Amino acid sequence: MASHSQTQRPSGGPDHSPFTVALDAMGGDYGPGEIVPGAIQAARDLGVGVLLVGDEGLVRQALARHSLNGLRLDVVPSQGVIEEMDHPLAAMREKPRASVVEAARLVKAGRAQAMVSMGSTGAAMATSALVFGMLEGVERPAIGGPVLAPLSNAVLLDLGSNVDCRPSQMLGFGAIGVAFARRVQGVHNPRVGILSVGSEEGKGNRQVKEVYHLFKQSSLNFVGNVEGIDVFGDKADVIVCDGFVGNILLKFTEGLGTALARRLAEAASSALPASAMHLLGAELSSMTNAVDLAGGGPLFGVNGIAVIGHGRSRAPSIARAVALAKRAVDFGLVEAMQQELAAIQGQIKREAPEGPP
Amino acid sequence: MASHSQTQRPSGGPDHSPFTVALDAMGGDYGPGEIVPGAIQAARDLGVGVLLVGDEGLVRQALARHSLNGLRLDVVPSQGVIEEMDHPLAAMREKPRASVVEAARLVKAGRAQAMVSMGSTGAAMATSALVFGMLEGVERPAIGGPVLAPLSNAVLLDLGSNVDCRPSQMLGFGAIGVAFARRVQGVHNPRVGILSVGSEEGKGNRQVKEVYHLFKQSSLNFVGNVEGIDVFGDKADVIVCDGFVGNILLKFTEGLGTALARRLAEAASSALPASAMHLLGAELSSMTNAVDLAGGGPLFGVNGIAVIGHGRSRAPSIARAVALAKRAVDFGLVEAMQQELAAIQGQIKREAPEGPP
Repeated sequence: MASHSQTQRPSGGPDHSPFTVALDAMGGDYGPGEIVPGAIQAARDLGVGVLLVGDEGLVRQALARHSLNGLRLDVVPSQGVIEEMDHPLAAMREKPRASVVEAARLVKAGRAQAMVSMGSTGAAMATSALVFGMLEGVERPAIGGPVLAPLSNAVLLDLGSNVDCRPSQMLGFGAIGVAFARRVQGVHNPRVGILSVGSEEGKGNRQVKEVYHLFKQSSLNFVGNVEGIDVFGDKADVIVCDGFVGNILLKFTEGLGTALARRLAEAASSALPASAMHLLGAELSSMTNAVDLAGGGPLFGVNGIAVIGHGRSRAPSIARAVALAKRAVDFGLVEAMQQELAAIQGQIKREAPEGPP
Repeated sequence: MASHSQTQRPSGGPDHSPFTVALDAMGGDYGPGEIVPGAIQAARDLGVGVLLVGDEGLVRQALARHSLNGLRLDVVPSQGVIEEMDHPLAAMREKPRASVVEAARLVKAGRAQAMVSMGSTGAAMATSALVFGMLEGVERPAIGGPVLAPLSNAVLLDLGSNVDCRPSQMLGFGAIGVAFARRVQGVHNPRVGILSVGSEEGKGNRQVKEVYHLFKQSSLNFVGNVEGIDVFGDKADVIVCDGFVGNILLKFTEGLGTALARRLAEAASSALPASAMHLLGAELSSMTNAVDLAGGGPLFGVNGIAVIGHGRSRAPSIARAVALAKRAVDFGLVEAMQQELAAIQGQIKREAPEGPP
């Protein structure tokens, strides 16, 4: 397994101020109806403070249904929501006080240490990039993490919107993944692999062949190419791929899990009691939808902690996303990313960006 | 579901000569020990003739353990085996009478109508390409098929060695997939999609964006981009991807199935009897290793039928591979591929190949 015992302490020294999260109360498919119970669960179970950012009336109405005794919960009003269908940058201009933007500003202003949103991934990425800024050496936020846990602890990235990546971007993903594996997962000297169609050097497409040499010469603990099957074989702690491949894999996994659960129910229902089949279906779905299981993933490469979750998240997933955000802050993920990126800076030759950023 | 009722007849007119397969008796992890029982099962259950191509002594020794009464089985001696580790083209020169090469020659000479091998995929591809020749408009063999059945009936290709594909190659995959879906699966007007990271036009990497326009202008029944989750959503009957993505997906699926089965056993073993867990594990493994379940896949784009199976295949999978080869011949797959490729020829602008073929 990828987890080792030597969990490290954050480099910036312990921060004794109580952790507060800025939670986008309007994001996700269910809005305040699920976000507010999630916030309450996080405040109660983790002892964290939660700033609920959203339409004040709606949020207070959802809060009114619960007992808030002793919980650190507050409402910060915002105006408007950036929807999944909106173009993120245009929407930020049109709705400058949208919930996700206000949440990011609370972090920037120091009123919260991290933000969490179940809303549009594009909006959270654009907001984080603009409000927090990018880390040195990174052009655009990446997403990823141990999304296949508990089937695999490997940190996969990019699973998002970075397609046709240049070698320097891929090397950056490696450094960022190492920061996550080292700090959040406590892996001592994370092994980094490139996802490809064969494990030998020279196997792969043009991109992989180019990237291979850069990784080999870098300071990363590079273990070479890994194949699709190796994602589950503990061959690497961090697996780097172009966002085109990663995003297809992520969505493919979700579809496969759902299809397997359905098929298994058909195939075995005569042999097993209904309760057992229900249990199995739920296990299968949750194991292949691990983004939801973990509550979400942190945005990588931005100068602050933003955790984005699945739009379908219910209250428990929202609480888990807050827990992940707290862990990322406690473990100094941003500082760790900065350090790992700085370590590889010398190895990245500055290439001219191709196409618009 | 993708299957429709209008199964079509082969265009070349019915062939009343009894079907005979040339079976590479030396290929696969178990050699004649599993290939021979597989051949016997195929000869008995399907009434087909089987030419077992391999080391005569070893094959006859394996045959001696069985009753062959009334079966059309024969041995064709060959010398040497091309191993998984060999470089296919070099090995073909060094072992010109290797089992897989002799099997292809039997088809070329008309002594068999199709070949089946569980040996090196590279060797089967190189041999088929050289002995059968390529179909007009195709440069290199592709692999694929409904490999995720019964979870999805979509024909996926390329899952093999075609990486950094040019648009014309991708369009060729589309035509080939249509031929398979139409003839072998009986789909009336197969819908063709491109695997990408978003369903909208304009979503994807450079390759997909380029390919999208070519598909849109083609005579294919193009339904646009499909996402990873859509592979299981009956959005397209044929899904085209670069072999880099396809091969990663194929191997990823195998790893995920194995990991899920193991994890499910841990998670549910206390709630379920051991026999039920065993059943579930087997179901899961087989459903995510559908190449093995179908016995294998046909090589696409070559001028003849060659079915290649998993090296780990046991006798029942080998018999299924023979059945698939027979079906491909009965349904006129090669002629159908030729027709579909001819139909798109006008739409393929001749590009200069990049890099060595």
